[in-house]
Amino acid sequence: MKSDPSGAWHRREGLALLTDLYELTMMAGYWETGRADQPVSFNYFFRDLPPHAGFAVSAGLESFLDYCEHLRFSESDIAYLRRQGLFHEAFLDYLVQFRPRFTVQAAPEGSLVYPHEPVVQVDGTLFETQLIESALLNMINYQTLIATKAARVRLATDGEPVMEFGLRRAHGPDGAVSGSRAAYIGGCTSTSNVLAGKVHDVPVAGTHAHSWVMSYQSELEAFRDFARIYPEKCILLVDTYDTVRSGVPNAITVFREMHDAGNPVRPAIRLDSGDLAKLSKIAHKMMVAAGFEDPLIVASNDLDEDLIADLKRQGAKINAWGVGTHLITAYDAPALNGVYKLVAVLENETWLPKMKVSSNIEKATEPARKSVVRYFDADGRPVGDMLYLAEESPVLEGPVHGRNRLHPHRTAHFENAARGEHLLQVVFRDGVRTRPAESVHVIRSRAQDQMDALAEEFKRLRNPEIYRVHLSDGLGKLKDRMLGESA
Amino acid sequence: MKSDPSGAWHRREGLALLTDLYELTMMAGYWETGRADQPVSFNYFFRDLPPHAGFAVSAGLESFLDYCEHLRFSESDIAYLRRQGLFHEAFLDYLVQFRPRFTVQAAPEGSLVYPHEPVVQVDGTLFETQLIESALLNMINYQTLIATKAARVRLATDGEPVMEFGLRRAHGPDGAVSGSRAAYIGGCTSTSNVLAGKVHDVPVAGTHAHSWVMSYQSELEAFRDFARIYPEKCILLVDTYDTVRSGVPNAITVFREMHDAGNPVRPAIRLDSGDLAKLSKIAHKMMVAAGFEDPLIVASNDLDEDLIADLKRQGAKINAWGVGTHLITAYDAPALNGVYKLVAVLENETWLPKMKVSSNIEKATEPARKSVVRYFDADGRPVGDMLYLAEESPVLEGPVHGRNRLHPHRTAHFENAARGEHLLQVVFRDGVRTRPAESVHVIRSRAQDQMDALAEEFKRLRNPEIYRVHLSDGLGKLKDRMLGESA
Repeated sequence: MKSDPSGAWHRREGLALLTDLYELTMMAGYWETGRADQPVSFNYFFRDLPPHAGFAVSAGLESFLDYCEHLRFSESDIAYLRRQGLFHEAFLDYLVQFRPRFTVQAAPEGSLVYPHEPVVQVDGTLFETQLIESALLNMINYQTLIATKAARVRLATDGEPVMEFGLRRAHGPDGAVSGSRAAYIGGCTSTSNVLAGKVHDVPVAGTHAHSWVMSYQSELEAFRDFARIYPEKCILLVDTYDTVRSGVPNAITVFREMHDAGNPVRPAIRLDSGDLAKLSKIAHKMMVAAGFEDPLIVASNDLDEDLIADLKRQGAKINAWGVGTHLITAYDAPALNGVYKLVAVLENETWLPKMKVSSNIEKATEPARKSVVRYFDADGRPVGDMLYLAEESPVLEGPVHGRNRLHPHRTAHFENAARGEHLLQVVFRDGVRTRPAESVHVIRSRAQDQMDALAEEFKRLRNPEIYRVHLSDGLGKLKDRMLGESA
Repeated sequence: MKSDPSGAWHRREGLALLTDLYELTMMAGYWETGRADQPVSFNYFFRDLPPHAGFAVSAGLESFLDYCEHLRFSESDIAYLRRQGLFHEAFLDYLVQFRPRFTVQAAPEGSLVYPHEPVVQVDGTLFETQLIESALLNMINYQTLIATKAARVRLATDGEPVMEFGLRRAHGPDGAVSGSRAAYIGGCTSTSNVLAGKVHDVPVAGTHAHSWVMSYQSELEAFRDFARIYPEKCILLVDTYDTVRSGVPNAITVFREMHDAGNPVRPAIRLDSGDLAKLSKIAHKMMVAAGFEDPLIVASNDLDEDLIADLKRQGAKINAWGVGTHLITAYDAPALNGVYKLVAVLENETWLPKMKVSSNIEKATEPARKSVVRYFDADGRPVGDMLYLAEESPVLEGPVHGRNRLHPHRTAHFENAARGEHLLQVVFRDGVRTRPAESVHVIRSRAQDQMDALAEEFKRLRNPEIYRVHLSDGLGKLKDRMLGESA
């Protein structure tokens, strides 16, 4: 067996083998029993929002589409699989020839999405739709998790800037790079991660570390040099020694010197330890007393949305926030439980709906290929989403009637709906991307616009209102019938 | 600004920019103030073990060394930095010319390591030692976190096999691949992640999903086909419909047919839902009654070390374990708080110790370049570690005396020490690797051997004994003096 312990695998490897072994063993089974080319449809959805969240921000689609576009088994992939002793040569030949032919519909990245609705719908052969399951879940679960966490942090700051500082605690290099991207989509203003800046065009920002100050005999000299080198981007870290007696006075001295030298930058400091509420108020008062009316005061140190909300409640004089570990790992709940389930099988040119029934009715999947329509009231605020059978023609104007998702024999309404918009778009058709990649700025704006349009009750940090997802009459009747047949 | 939203960055990019922006701005500052080539020494250590852990399993060194070996700024890296408008052209030229010259000492991967001791020590210029900080922390914090979590899971199973199933909830593709590697080092038996198998030679294993069974009209037919295709690796998932009334009886039928056909494999089933304690006992009894004395019963479904220990306490008849989300994300505490601190500065050919003093004495760093000696009793059990000044000659035989780390004016002893071994080894000298990469199997064996040698009280899942880390007389005196001077 060849062992390659190098950390540099990503420079040499495609991602075709980024799959659970059982996908490959099942694929070989489908192939062997003549069912590999059976057309099927899968839905990606999640059942639960992250703790206390009223919505999720979808992210990770671009990574997934890039993976789809480059999905090929290399010679070394085949050689590795051959060594497992599990697969027939003829199946390995089939893998060599394999090219994706599937079609993907998805909510555009940066869309707000909700439990139980398809965020991604994949139509393809049984073979290829199983192959991609693990990679799809890996990429979309993680990036959606982080974008959603970032959105909550930004809600806590009431729109004040959030600098993402999580590189050193992210789960590996790509956890950091794709995590920084997702954090920006969700609402962060910048990242400290330079590679994420280069690769994804996320704005980069940073200050200096305590080590800069410690490398000088004098804090004042350290500040002076930093201000001289970066006059336009000068955020001074004031807590290396004593924030009140040394850090803030030295920073004021340097900002005054810059001012006197004809360089009237906005004075900016960072607090990274201690009682951030108290210290920020004292620092603010000192800076105002020194004639700096509007200082930028950045706080960091194991912050999350709850700590930020609490600091604001205490009247902390902080107006920019550095958030690291808790954001990039979604510390309080570091996984989104998105799943990918079979919803339909094509037989005799007809899509037959499939449903996984469970003893727990809440865990039953929504059957059939779908379209999703988001309804807005006359003011443009979203009022709820409705899942339709793909073959139905959704109502796109005026009030709309459907069924309750959990109890599909009951009716449900969006009475204040004024218009509807399709959520899912075709992004990959018959194995080919159907539109160019979007810039991260476009995606971030989409998320921000959608959050702005969302009513306040869905944006509370605790006990948000539950956004309604109903079934169309057609889908509701189908689900009701299928639940009855399975009982 | 060029935007590259592709998810495929890892195929094109080096990792030189995998750093926090402030490292680069400080580097430019050191360069501009003529201090970039100042020789310094940094220590990587962590202050707290993961919750309830009595030890950590070091991992991630190989990824870090590979990063070091390939550390170059590409033309496109430089072009990106130029666009930031922060850096002088002469500094960018300096980056183009940059080649690592630093030296790394480290505990070999798979070593058990403890709070406050250097796991990695880097000697180099101020410039290069700052550059690598973020990447070192990213890789070693994450992989050590996951290896440690895996070790705890394996302790909970009392050595029974653990299959790592976390790909779909890992933080991105590399979170999955390097996480699977770390999980194997910590004690998992296999991974479901085929790419981790190919890249790192981790054994791969898997069963089938509910979708396999659902793709048939009959569960029995699904099992028959799977057994026919994979007679040697046939673990049947029995909970798609009704575990007791359908899944287990159908599995027994198939295993009996295999047996009758002259293929007496060990019958193996997997339970993925419901009351695992109760269902495993019922399934075990049914299989024994059917003449299969020693069935393999795999359980999965959101397991972690605490649930496993509780299932074993209830007498569950489970003898192999599939663990996913909770392992690959270290769900209960998804970040290791490792840090990287300046410990010495070379002036006039003498290493001057440095210490970050804090109002909280527990957060003061241990000053000076160090060596670390692990002491063992006459039975080969580790009794504690001692941090020495690099220039001291450690005692390597018999009882040893030193100082208490937190209260260095007090003495401390390892009275039952029989012999000592150096923990840190030179793995990278003057910019060049000093030994080939180790295979993941060698690393895993090291971890397993060290865990086997460790006394039981350090391996409890709750309230483990605290492993002792003392200071040598020389280091203790130095720290005591430096604390006094700073007071």
